[in-house]
Amino acid sequence: MYRPEIKLLDCTIRDGGLINKWQFSDELVRATYQAVCEAGVDYMEIGYKASDDMFDPKEYGKWRFCREDDVRKVLDGLELKSKLSCMVDIGRVRDEDILSAEQSIFDMMRVACYIKDVDKGIALANQILDKGYKDVTLNLMAVSTNLEKDIDEALSQISQTEIPYVYLVDSFGSFYCEDITFLTQKYLRALPGKTIGIHCHNNRQLAFGNTIQAIIEGSNILDGSVYGIGRGAGNCTLELLLGFLKNPKYNIRPILKLIEEYFVQLRNEIEWGYLIPMMITGTLNEHPRSAMALRASPDKEKYTEFYDKLTMPEIVE
Amino acid sequence: MYRPEIKLLDCTIRDGGLINKWQFSDELVRATYQAVCEAGVDYMEIGYKASDDMFDPKEYGKWRFCREDDVRKVLDGLELKSKLSCMVDIGRVRDEDILSAEQSIFDMMRVACYIKDVDKGIALANQILDKGYKDVTLNLMAVSTNLEKDIDEALSQISQTEIPYVYLVDSFGSFYCEDITFLTQKYLRALPGKTIGIHCHNNRQLAFGNTIQAIIEGSNILDGSVYGIGRGAGNCTLELLLGFLKNPKYNIRPILKLIEEYFVQLRNEIEWGYLIPMMITGTLNEHPRSAMALRASPDKEKYTEFYDKLTMPEIVE
Repeated sequence: MYRPEIKLLDCTIRDGGLINKWQFSDELVRATYQAVCEAGVDYMEIGYKASDDMFDPKEYGKWRFCREDDVRKVLDGLELKSKLSCMVDIGRVRDEDILSAEQSIFDMMRVACYIKDVDKGIALANQILDKGYKDVTLNLMAVSTNLEKDIDEALSQISQTEIPYVYLVDSFGSFYCEDITFLTQKYLRALPGKTIGIHCHNNRQLAFGNTIQAIIEGSNILDGSVYGIGRGAGNCTLELLLGFLKNPKYNIRPILKLIEEYFVQLRNEIEWGYLIPMMITGTLNEHPRSAMALRASPDKEKYTEFYDKLTMPEIVE
Repeated sequence: MYRPEIKLLDCTIRDGGLINKWQFSDELVRATYQAVCEAGVDYMEIGYKASDDMFDPKEYGKWRFCREDDVRKVLDGLELKSKLSCMVDIGRVRDEDILSAEQSIFDMMRVACYIKDVDKGIALANQILDKGYKDVTLNLMAVSTNLEKDIDEALSQISQTEIPYVYLVDSFGSFYCEDITFLTQKYLRALPGKTIGIHCHNNRQLAFGNTIQAIIEGSNILDGSVYGIGRGAGNCTLELLLGFLKNPKYNIRPILKLIEEYFVQLRNEIEWGYLIPMMITGTLNEHPRSAMALRASPDKEKYTEFYDKLTMPEIVE
């Protein structure tokens, strides 16, 4: 038995690009889209939409910008079975960067914002809704660091909008299943009629378990990435979700093939997954940037020193 | 707040030895024991006890046998703060291999058996109890493959014994949190007065999440291993458990230091962790031996072919 409402979103290129500045080959992106379609995954998020003048195109690959022409070129000739999504950050995209829905290759746009910026997030989401997009999400990041009253206030504001999807995001990989239960139930109660999504990071090997917990509580749109690729410890793996979900439209095999052909090699070139520094920031409910900086330094294996720095503030003053 | 009854058992050397035939250096075993003691972990399982004539000592390291003299020599001069455990398999140990409790360095002996052999398991556990050991466990392996009536019958038999600890074991890493809830509740109901333990494998990155679920349901003795080392995908990591548990007697830092000094290097020499073939056997509720054989072969990355072999039986006939 399965719940037909449940949808899967692949965020391989978008979240994976946070590691390598979106410098993926066209071949890998095209192969990923093909595999995601064959696997029956509902959406693929191919990158961030951002203005050219905010990031240097020499430094950042094309999936930091998601120009419509670039997307069409890479997917040229393919049947667009999985809907395409891109993420937009508040303040990093201009109105003219976003085409109207009927001109665009994108079906979904996801607005990421912190609770403190929820008004800006709602405004941007409304702007996108006004352009005719149906699948618009608001992804509230890092709520593990917010006071409950501020979460409640934000949810109350969002409940008065037409935004159809709202995501619970475990940005730092710091949630336990009980937190997922508590917050998913809160989101569902506060946002009647909206679909709640779940996006988990894997700092403590809980991304898959917590996504299952969110499903149990009523989440109906789930993020995963191929082989778990994503910033720091990475995300819930798409292949585990495909192995878990019972809907016959889903098929794990194309993703296994994609991993075999591309992602094993990619994992040798760029780093993500279970790593002690990311586990430590997750346990401490902190952004993984310090852990990522450590892994990029010659001290990359000095876990104890890193732990001491983060837990004994007098040492770093 | 914490539950003072909860105890931690480190199975690093015992379960890790299933990968390298227990060929650990004395230095690593001693350093592991020291770190486990400093971390406040209650028990350390240092290996299997087995008869010399059942395994070739040229092929297998000393932790396959756990001779009392070998253990004493490696730990010489150390304060034995963490209690010592060894595992015994039915049919692989003779009565004379097990000293009486008062002569032995071991406090705990854990009997591993399948449900079909529960009578033999109970007999061996009783034999050990008769030698004066207080901490005796029965670890029922691979119950994910058993019919419920057979599990119920085994639990009913065990309920009539003096064995104080019974473990729920997810041998194949195939359980979801709902299975853990169902079975832990069943074990607790069927075995009043006994302590229920949990031992999870990490094939689908659920070992930690499932161990937390078992804690929620009432498990009071938890297995973990340093950096998750263990057969196939490995186990619940000890460092994640230490980061989760609130009891002030526990300290994660010595384990981080041990990982930094020994286990990062060891992971470069022998393989465990999240690997697609082990994920596949976990999803299929199968022993990981086929996955381990694949990883030891030149076809180690041929995931799709492996998946096809396991899911399309006509091909392998």
